[in-house]
Amino acid sequence: MEPLERSFALIQRGTQEILLEDALRKKLALGRPLRIKAGFDPTAPDLHLGHTVLINKLRQFQELGHEILFLIGDFTGMIGDPTGKSATRKPLSREEIQGNARTYRDQVSHILDPDKTRVVFNSEWMDQLGTAGLVQLAARHTVARMLERDDFSARFKAGQPIAIHEFLYPLIQGYDSVALRADVELGGTDQKFNLLVGRQLQEAYGQEPQVVITLPILEGLDGVQKMSKSLGNYIGITDPPEEMFGKIMSVSDELMWRYFELLSHRAISEIEGWQKAVEEGTNPRDIKMELGLELVNRFHGRDQAARARDDFIARFQHGALPEDLAEVHLTTGADGRLAIANLLKEAGLVKSTSEAIRLIGQGAVRIDGERVEDRQLQCSAGSVGVYQVGKRRFAKVRLS
Amino acid sequence: MEPLERSFALIQRGTQEILLEDALRKKLALGRPLRIKAGFDPTAPDLHLGHTVLINKLRQFQELGHEILFLIGDFTGMIGDPTGKSATRKPLSREEIQGNARTYRDQVSHILDPDKTRVVFNSEWMDQLGTAGLVQLAARHTVARMLERDDFSARFKAGQPIAIHEFLYPLIQGYDSVALRADVELGGTDQKFNLLVGRQLQEAYGQEPQVVITLPILEGLDGVQKMSKSLGNYIGITDPPEEMFGKIMSVSDELMWRYFELLSHRAISEIEGWQKAVEEGTNPRDIKMELGLELVNRFHGRDQAARARDDFIARFQHGALPEDLAEVHLTTGADGRLAIANLLKEAGLVKSTSEAIRLIGQGAVRIDGERVEDRQLQCSAGSVGVYQVGKRRFAKVRLS
Repeated sequence: MEPLERSFALIQRGTQEILLEDALRKKLALGRPLRIKAGFDPTAPDLHLGHTVLINKLRQFQELGHEILFLIGDFTGMIGDPTGKSATRKPLSREEIQGNARTYRDQVSHILDPDKTRVVFNSEWMDQLGTAGLVQLAARHTVARMLERDDFSARFKAGQPIAIHEFLYPLIQGYDSVALRADVELGGTDQKFNLLVGRQLQEAYGQEPQVVITLPILEGLDGVQKMSKSLGNYIGITDPPEEMFGKIMSVSDELMWRYFELLSHRAISEIEGWQKAVEEGTNPRDIKMELGLELVNRFHGRDQAARARDDFIARFQHGALPEDLAEVHLTTGADGRLAIANLLKEAGLVKSTSEAIRLIGQGAVRIDGERVEDRQLQCSAGSVGVYQVGKRRFAKVRLS
Repeated sequence: MEPLERSFALIQRGTQEILLEDALRKKLALGRPLRIKAGFDPTAPDLHLGHTVLINKLRQFQELGHEILFLIGDFTGMIGDPTGKSATRKPLSREEIQGNARTYRDQVSHILDPDKTRVVFNSEWMDQLGTAGLVQLAARHTVARMLERDDFSARFKAGQPIAIHEFLYPLIQGYDSVALRADVELGGTDQKFNLLVGRQLQEAYGQEPQVVITLPILEGLDGVQKMSKSLGNYIGITDPPEEMFGKIMSVSDELMWRYFELLSHRAISEIEGWQKAVEEGTNPRDIKMELGLELVNRFHGRDQAARARDDFIARFQHGALPEDLAEVHLTTGADGRLAIANLLKEAGLVKSTSEAIRLIGQGAVRIDGERVEDRQLQCSAGSVGVYQVGKRRFAKVRLS
């Protein structure tokens, strides 16, 4: 394969869509470092593995010698929700933004080379744009086209209010591409509309439009819903080593391959080799350990990764953990929770909730190898875990 | 009548709508000078009598001791049409705006007391508002409510594009009321939606909402379409005295009473006296001369007014102008024009166009008493005039 086609194939791996592929080839052929933009919300600096799908793609661009523009959308962050309806979108101060930016930097430094990553803030050019500049920007798009965005269209048809400033946000995001003269912008599939506004605005401002690359949304531990903090089905990149390793070991074999595709930095050929090995009889659990090792290593280093693996093996020693543990599906209450005692009973691990409470008191109950201390523990919908009572009773429970 | 009710009646005279009447009474009862806002387009400083309907109302407020805020919308004027589609809405420079403001001041000084009129420019506060401030302003209104405005609604339904900045303009106009803390805003009936946005924004910014007063659109000389420069059916306030007087004398008797209502500063009782006199046999033409005298006097002074009247009488001397001149309706070509020779023939004043051209050459043709010099003269749709051939042949011709 030609070097250009090799780069193209590397970039294409695991993406949802590239608009337009030919434009990307043309830009790669320019021979200069491309300006790769990705925008981040300044209000939520706690990253989970779902976020790293995109950051991994940035890393690939970085490895190919391109310039990463890590954009923190502080301009809108400092405005918050002007309608005052959303309590979670309070205006952030300049200090809070700076603090969140440092947190981002620390977290992404496990994946990106900080020396080659330019962190930029859009308040730089947005504050300068001024009232008149924003009016002129708003003239570049029509109401009808904005209403084509899926969520706007649904809300408009349902008679739900759309405040006019919501129409300005995609334009501001697009103008960021103009200000940065971005060659490529990455985003989740849910960002496609906004990324395309960037292309259109760059053309309107006389620039070559950026290539838009969308990345799939990563499924959470349940393998069904998107990974999300509020659903509780996530692996945070600041999760402690044992917890991270245990969570990875809890995912289904099918989801394991998806995680390899979107989270691993291993060569495709190596992953394909493992897939073949599993088909020929290798225990998928051993391969899952490779994934666990790689990810814990990335965020906690080699020693911690080895220790988490050894710890995991020790906890499930003597082959006590059956290899083909069947999954039990349980349903939580209206509040999305299920008490540990009820869970153990419903999963068939104990005969009664009082037995469950007694056994917790004796330290005989573990979740993913970790001892349960709290008899009142509430387990959340969306979580998946291996529940253990004593040495021999196990159940893998998926809560919904 | 109580003084407050007398003020209210004076303000109400000739208005289309007052929103809300009770709020206006309450504000009048405050006993302090109210802040009366009216906005003017900085691109079109050539006023005609249609504009003066509103300015007359400002004068009444001024006479009642209130403060007039003569707002020149220079902020949007300096932006022009950002889509670049309208050649007539080029961005204006600060110098052009200042020049136009001076022209406004000169023109309105015939009606308003310049010493008691504060001319304000909205760029003062709009430039300061900044990008973030404009986003916050845009959060105060919804897309659905903006689409309720008649013209937006029609364009949206017809699939005609509405650029997003067009949704910002009513908000900017409304924010002007916030910045000025306006008590009352005046505008044409076509401005009602925007004036109400001002009320809503003032409430959102914690102010008492302004009272909105809409004024009817003045009909042009044809008595049908609104007075407008582009329709050619207007009386400019800088028209020379004779022309102004002649145009007023050309309006129908019915329109004359409308003009008295909206343009005269005479007491209602006096006008009602004239109406009674006409019913009892007085020639309406004599009353029309009173209107002509008042309006020419307003813009050119007493001497010029008297001269214009005497000149008019002299031109139509010996009672040559029949008192009940029937009106002839003629239609122009596709270009909205009709050559004078054809007009005279079609009006039955000459037998042929060649006769018409010969008579023009002899100086025997007049329009509104003014001799026609140009044999190729093109008369425009929307105009009304008394055409005279020789001493005895007259026709009042309305062109459409």
